[in-house]
Amino acid sequence: MTDQGAAKDDKTPRTARGERTRRALLSAAAAEFGEKGFHDGSISGITRRAGCALGSFYTYFDTKDDIFRALVNDMSGQVRDYVSPRIAQARDGIDAERIGLLSFLEFARTHKEIYRIIDESEFVDAAAYRAHYENTASRMAARLTSAAARGDVRPDVEEVHAWAIMGMNVFLGLRYGVWDDSRPAEEVAAIANALIERGIGAQGR
Amino acid sequence: MTDQGAAKDDKTPRTARGERTRRALLSAAAAEFGEKGFHDGSISGITRRAGCALGSFYTYFDTKDDIFRALVNDMSGQVRDYVSPRIAQARDGIDAERIGLLSFLEFARTHKEIYRIIDESEFVDAAAYRAHYENTASRMAARLTSAAARGDVRPDVEEVHAWAIMGMNVFLGLRYGVWDDSRPAEEVAAIANALIERGIGAQGR
Repeated sequence: MTDQGAAKDDKTPRTARGERTRRALLSAAAAEFGEKGFHDGSISGITRRAGCALGSFYTYFDTKDDIFRALVNDMSGQVRDYVSPRIAQARDGIDAERIGLLSFLEFARTHKEIYRIIDESEFVDAAAYRAHYENTASRMAARLTSAAARGDVRPDVEEVHAWAIMGMNVFLGLRYGVWDDSRPAEEVAAIANALIERGIGAQGR
Repeated sequence: MTDQGAAKDDKTPRTARGERTRRALLSAAAAEFGEKGFHDGSISGITRRAGCALGSFYTYFDTKDDIFRALVNDMSGQVRDYVSPRIAQARDGIDAERIGLLSFLEFARTHKEIYRIIDESEFVDAAAYRAHYENTASRMAARLTSAAARGDVRPDVEEVHAWAIMGMNVFLGLRYGVWDDSRPAEEVAAIANALIERGIGAQGR
């Protein structure tokens, strides 16, 4: 097997071209697993979609399980990278949660395969599934704690609030992002945010 | 095949004994699929756990898919039957949501296989998965609308609030029911309910 830009030990691409190939394989895996599911999806289906040779697959990944795990981590990171810079533009801690949900709805509408892939990881790689939600909840809890320090939200916000708001977002994304996107995302985000503003907003803000 | 108390056409048990056998098969299926998942679970594993002959299985179910679908509907109904009578004891519409979450946390702690089974239905029987959440959200929306008519909650409650609260409950149940049940359920339910009370409670109630 020729080294197509990957380190021999950890298979991390070392060149820009290698990174592009790995990225093409992950995009192809999202389409393959999103359409067929993990069990019916195949490595040959992934390389066909990516337009690359079977050997290239093994330059970057060991097995079907391996690329699926990488895909879950990658999609988890993609959501974070889409949502985080938008949240950074928020007026305050409550507006941050509105933008967080709004941008998540936008992401889900344009990446409808995300639910199927993250959800199936519960059965293919339970640790990756749990890590996705624990990491998302941790980021949200940190955001709420900072907002409390700035006086935007009530001082007693804690982990339960983070899991509650994450759960709201996940189900609103499923209902109004993936299953039916006919309602304006801004409207859904505004209704949920009004609940959050009254629910955890600092008094007198 | 002898008729062990099931109608020949629809396989619905016609006798109390038949109903007991069907129920034993469903309980065994919950254990089998909860432990092994759908793909690795088997009909023979189910009948072994239920302590009945293979023929009994086919008296009540056609296939592994068939009993899985029946199990999803049955667990969905079990949650409803556990939670609904408790909610009926609530002081008002806000207290109803507290009791709804509290009793769901209790149910999840004693039926930890429920998440795995409902979640796997997304891949085995997408219609059953969707029906479970759409039915749950519809019941919740109806409850909120009644509470608004009684003046317990804001008059503008709607479907978005139902999906938001259901999502909160699902993720709080996963985090504080299934993954880690060390925190008192009453405490988790009280924190979430305070958010809901401020978030959708009628002004001046």
